[in-house]
Amino acid sequence: MIENNITGFNEDKSKNDAKEILLGVIPDKSNLKESDIVKGYDFNKGLDYGKLFESYKNTGFQASAVGNAIDEINKMIQWRLSDEPLAEGEEDDGLRGQARCKIFLGYTSNMASSGIRDIIKYLVQHSMVDVIVSTAGGIEEDFIKCFAPTYMGEFELDGHDLRKKGLNRIGNLVMPNDNYCQFESWIMPIFDKMLEEQKTKGTLWTPSRLINRLGREINNEDSIYYWAWKNNIPVYSPAITDGSIGDMLYLHSYQNPGLVLDIIRDVRGIDNHAIDAKKTGVILLGGGVIKHHILNANLLRNGCDFCVYLNTANEFDGSDSGAKTTEAVSWGKIAMNAKPVKIYAEASIVFPILVAETFAKTFKQKSELELKMNKRSIFE
Amino acid sequence: MIENNITGFNEDKSKNDAKEILLGVIPDKSNLKESDIVKGYDFNKGLDYGKLFESYKNTGFQASAVGNAIDEINKMIQWRLSDEPLAEGEEDDGLRGQARCKIFLGYTSNMASSGIRDIIKYLVQHSMVDVIVSTAGGIEEDFIKCFAPTYMGEFELDGHDLRKKGLNRIGNLVMPNDNYCQFESWIMPIFDKMLEEQKTKGTLWTPSRLINRLGREINNEDSIYYWAWKNNIPVYSPAITDGSIGDMLYLHSYQNPGLVLDIIRDVRGIDNHAIDAKKTGVILLGGGVIKHHILNANLLRNGCDFCVYLNTANEFDGSDSGAKTTEAVSWGKIAMNAKPVKIYAEASIVFPILVAETFAKTFKQKSELELKMNKRSIFE
Amino acid sequence: MIENNITGFNEDKSKNDAKEILLGVIPDKSNLKESDIVKGYDFNKGLDYGKLFESYKNTGFQASAVGNAIDEINKMIQWRLSDEPLAEGEEDDGLRGQARCKIFLGYTSNMASSGIRDIIKYLVQHSMVDVIVSTAGGIEEDFIKCFAPTYMGEFELDGHDLRKKGLNRIGNLVMPNDNYCQFESWIMPIFDKMLEEQKTKGTLWTPSRLINRLGREINNEDSIYYWAWKNNIPVYSPAITDGSIGDMLYLHSYQNPGLVLDIIRDVRGIDNHAIDAKKTGVILLGGGVIKHHILNANLLRNGCDFCVYLNTANEFDGSDSGAKTTEAVSWGKIAMNAKPVKIYAEASIVFPILVAETFAKTFKQKSELELKMNKRSIFE
Amino acid sequence: MIENNITGFNEDKSKNDAKEILLGVIPDKSNLKESDIVKGYDFNKGLDYGKLFESYKNTGFQASAVGNAIDEINKMIQWRLSDEPLAEGEEDDGLRGQARCKIFLGYTSNMASSGIRDIIKYLVQHSMVDVIVSTAGGIEEDFIKCFAPTYMGEFELDGHDLRKKGLNRIGNLVMPNDNYCQFESWIMPIFDKMLEEQKTKGTLWTPSRLINRLGREINNEDSIYYWAWKNNIPVYSPAITDGSIGDMLYLHSYQNPGLVLDIIRDVRGIDNHAIDAKKTGVILLGGGVIKHHILNANLLRNGCDFCVYLNTANEFDGSDSGAKTTEAVSWGKIAMNAKPVKIYAEASIVFPILVAETFAKTFKQKSELELKMNKRSIFE
Repeated sequence: MIENNITGFNEDKSKNDAKEILLGVIPDKSNLKESDIVKGYDFNKGLDYGKLFESYKNTGFQASAVGNAIDEINKMIQWRLSDEPLAEGEEDDGLRGQARCKIFLGYTSNMASSGIRDIIKYLVQHSMVDVIVSTAGGIEEDFIKCFAPTYMGEFELDGHDLRKKGLNRIGNLVMPNDNYCQFESWIMPIFDKMLEEQKTKGTLWTPSRLINRLGREINNEDSIYYWAWKNNIPVYSPAITDGSIGDMLYLHSYQNPGLVLDIIRDVRGIDNHAIDAKKTGVILLGGGVIKHHILNANLLRNGCDFCVYLNTANEFDGSDSGAKTTEAVSWGKIAMNAKPVKIYAEASIVFPILVAETFAKTFKQKSELELKMNKRSIFE
Repeated sequence: MIENNITGFNEDKSKNDAKEILLGVIPDKSNLKESDIVKGYDFNKGLDYGKLFESYKNTGFQASAVGNAIDEINKMIQWRLSDEPLAEGEEDDGLRGQARCKIFLGYTSNMASSGIRDIIKYLVQHSMVDVIVSTAGGIEEDFIKCFAPTYMGEFELDGHDLRKKGLNRIGNLVMPNDNYCQFESWIMPIFDKMLEEQKTKGTLWTPSRLINRLGREINNEDSIYYWAWKNNIPVYSPAITDGSIGDMLYLHSYQNPGLVLDIIRDVRGIDNHAIDAKKTGVILLGGGVIKHHILNANLLRNGCDFCVYLNTANEFDGSDSGAKTTEAVSWGKIAMNAKPVKIYAEASIVFPILVAETFAKTFKQKSELELKMNKRSIFE
Repeated sequence: MIENNITGFNEDKSKNDAKEILLGVIPDKSNLKESDIVKGYDFNKGLDYGKLFESYKNTGFQASAVGNAIDEINKMIQWRLSDEPLAEGEEDDGLRGQARCKIFLGYTSNMASSGIRDIIKYLVQHSMVDVIVSTAGGIEEDFIKCFAPTYMGEFELDGHDLRKKGLNRIGNLVMPNDNYCQFESWIMPIFDKMLEEQKTKGTLWTPSRLINRLGREINNEDSIYYWAWKNNIPVYSPAITDGSIGDMLYLHSYQNPGLVLDIIRDVRGIDNHAIDAKKTGVILLGGGVIKHHILNANLLRNGCDFCVYLNTANEFDGSDSGAKTTEAVSWGKIAMNAKPVKIYAEASIVFPILVAETFAKTFKQKSELELKMNKRSIFE
Repeated sequence: MIENNITGFNEDKSKNDAKEILLGVIPDKSNLKESDIVKGYDFNKGLDYGKLFESYKNTGFQASAVGNAIDEINKMIQWRLSDEPLAEGEEDDGLRGQARCKIFLGYTSNMASSGIRDIIKYLVQHSMVDVIVSTAGGIEEDFIKCFAPTYMGEFELDGHDLRKKGLNRIGNLVMPNDNYCQFESWIMPIFDKMLEEQKTKGTLWTPSRLINRLGREINNEDSIYYWAWKNNIPVYSPAITDGSIGDMLYLHSYQNPGLVLDIIRDVRGIDNHAIDAKKTGVILLGGGVIKHHILNANLLRNGCDFCVYLNTANEFDGSDSGAKTTEAVSWGKIAMNAKPVKIYAEASIVFPILVAETFAKTFKQKSELELKMNKRSIFE
């Protein structure tokens, strides 16, 4: 027989208190709704991705955030001014049903390095977004891909080996050095022309105007910025000198000095886009300047109306990148009555799904409908 | 005219060196393959989720990991001993085509709290996995859900308010206290019976045997462990006392003392499952004990053959939770010739997709095929 | 002259609204205190680490958490029952000034792998903590270090190379395989003796009793568990089979079968430690079982009174590891009136500082004082 | 007697193979050095912070990174050109002992919000760093603090409540709205003067020239940029319009239009600082533009020679913020023979310690020495 006979442990008294503590608090279920029961997808009913992602809202944790973000983006797409009551003194001009929500899309450089570039291109090609902000790499890597591809690699590749081979690593991707050489050959003559126009026509160049020009020059339907130019979608990138374009501008400043790139005119541009809109939606892939810049512009209109953050950063370090949506509410960057969503996830996994369940589906539905009506899609 | 006339900046010499540095290293493209070009999904071709997730492998970052994990799990499902050459001295007994890879599934407590519980239930219902490891909460919350639901809440709910209302928070979920009361009423008589069997039949209870018994008693088709019992799938949980079951065992040790729960017999069980298998695959949702325990068992067979990690932890803190697969290779927990995949993502987003593109699809294909052949699915 | 002459930008109206939005909300400073002004350390006043860490409270972000955690741990150390008013019906027995807060320390396996093991050893050597919980690796690696050292390595070391060399990686540390061989030679005969005692004396072995025995057997002042045995500090580890000790128990179960390791007796032990205490403090390095187990025990007393979390996990995945202190309040694991602190940081950086500014300083002050009084330190 | 009599578990064969696997690989200790034994600080020897942080190198995980970063920064401080052999054709001009390493410091906005601002001010006050890059908030919050303080708050404060109170949250800090009002009153007349100079003298304003001017105007010894102006330390901030300064420039563009802020001239400035240096060291607090901008400039000199990253970002998302140092080596941003260090930690905890153990200590030693020699410190 086994006995509990080791000394030094005296646990023999009755533990009625502990039981009372365990079970004693009577739950207040007043806020618990039947529709809020946690429940996952049932694969016994077959595989239906639409229903699977619908089920995410009641799956919990970040699945819920994905489910809620799909709803939030669909609200951005579907909103029309006619959904709102007439403001005091406003008259119905018959056009309220056509006034849509202005959608700001921000993304970091790595999105252009990865295949997400092609998803963004699709959105811009069909005018599904209205204002773009990215960083230098987010601009130049789209153009560079028009000359030569980026390749799949591995996170573990050694930097010294790659350096010797002329390969640059971006996470688990690699880009050969000579991709930059081809980019240089293309861009330098454009800088020359821009300087010529500055001198002769008095053009004040800004990052957004530079990107617009490059989009026109690239003349390649794979490019995000080709479509941004074609569809007249402004692209802001205040720190555009922070990358290969900056390196080229550096060299150009010795070869053919004098080009000026003004950032004040551009902040006026993005701020007015926010102020002039009837309604704004914000989609942010990543953090840093792209996140802050779009939200700061929306601060000037007392906050955006719809908002989705998609990034991997956390708030504990006090960074704006990791700040939750409630921090942006305190600043007035997000409207008091908005229902913003933050998804803690890496964008390459989640953004294609968000697009699939929102823009791609709506586009498909609309385009079929509107083909009948012999009209262009609302997104074009 | 604007001039560059502020003093303190002398940048006037020619910068030919910089240009050479920028463009001078000739890339070695010997390892770059056409099939490895980074390219995202083209939504202009319509929305096909199968093709979308296939495209993930060339999308980069964690999308690639998701794409590769789908392949890795499909390998676990499809492997048969007949795929391998006969070992020296081995004779073909005609059964090699039926010998499958043994799949170990580990998940943390929160998976059972969330809707992922229902996804896991589906896998166990159809015998798609062979050995399970979870923590105490991962066991008890499945049973508790048979009595009363868990609800959607928010991460921001204040702990003091919830405490006063008798609601316990688990991330963005809440569970009322009285769910535990119902659980207690059910489990205490079972402990009594177990103690009786220990005394009369000499039964040596272990965590896995306790879970097996509870699965039989619950008699509820929504329960993971009902199906684990029915399908004879062992479930290990060495720290099963670390939760509500532990609280109940604590109370029981005063009300009706003497029950013993041995963990040595269980480590023998899981280790033999690894050692005896012809091939093993490992799927891990989260970290901690569940990750270490499955991999440690596989160490005894020189490493598992297929492996997918799905968690949010990083390696910089030296934790086993955040360790990469290459660390496990150093220990012999993953075989030298395996191609393990780690996905850095929150499981509630990604695991349903992995199941959709692997178990659910294979099951569907097989079941249609085998219906014709008038046979049960290979998974049953 | 430079002109703003690119078309497509119409920003010409007056923007008075934006200015009003920017500056219009009158701040309510009622909650802002002079003592709460953000201010960093002034190195012009010289380097005084005590003052530097004092300044952390007003530095912001995680520095504030470190500053607050120092205060919280000092409260655990300094609390005496005599600080509290007499409860109704309680009489002053003159011993209230000696009744201290019971301090629970939990840490994951990697803490024992790293040099933090030596910091923990110091705390246990001087009885500065009262109850310990760790995982299997957190137990066995302390003992293994008594036979052979762990070495500094690098996170980037390749698993395949290490495997061939017989080296196991733990983050940026490596441990040779034969350290385990020496451990095996030592532990197997102890298991034999334990089994003999089980058979002859009816001893019911538990993880804590096993650790206590190993601590006695190791007889090495570098060992945490030598001191835990000597100072009668219980160490719980419900999943102790999840590691090398488990491997050895597996082998032993064939060589000399029959040893039983019960976990019910141990949950009774830790729960009673929480219930019986006048006041409890909790210090947690890492997450998983060690975090949950200590807090779950404290749930049975309506929550611990002082609490410090130190880990790198975030709450977005709904894991208990990443849960904030407010989630534990909802469960009653932390008392409603406690002021718990979570530090988001890797413990190897921060824990030595916490010990330096709390236990080590208090110990020093007390020991000098008490030397004069010809008494042993309060910690012994 | 207890027996193992539950069916379905057949573990009865001898497990000799498992034992061989466990212990069979003979370790190759050729790379393991006595000096690399993992060992933590021994508080029994008393509390000596210098020795404590020295011990960090052998403590493991991120403590090792902190220990190594202290060494790396001390190398930046101590390096002199005379430490290197004469290059071919170089003559010793007797000044080689005075040529120091150029130190680039980058930090994100939150560093200026927190008390780290005062640590940075100390470094700039004593000319301990040579080139600075920050984002808009990192510039303006330093100036704003000259008018009114930022306060300690909590991460959990609700954004809606704060908005109503006119308080903006930055992590666990809050800043009243009217701090911005005071900032506006001060900065608008400066913009007027700058525009006047642009018109009359042809000044080409850039972000760095704007910051230089603001530093001169603020005339406050608490300000980082007052000292940057005084000590002629350039501060780059290409996206300076992304914040309150941008809001003010937006308003100014209507009130008094025409001011131009060029970023090409500034990229030329920072690139030349990197190219012209004999040796460069880089210290980065956080990620995003500040990290990329400094490293991109160093790319033009084939990489920096010394490097410390201090941030909380991980590489799995392919972001530049989370990229490891080896990724920067592939690009040539860090020299092939450098020994860069990345610390995964929140900067507010670690940066004061790094400064304490490097700049502050060296400054103290030098200033005492040099007082005797009747010279100014090399840092002044």
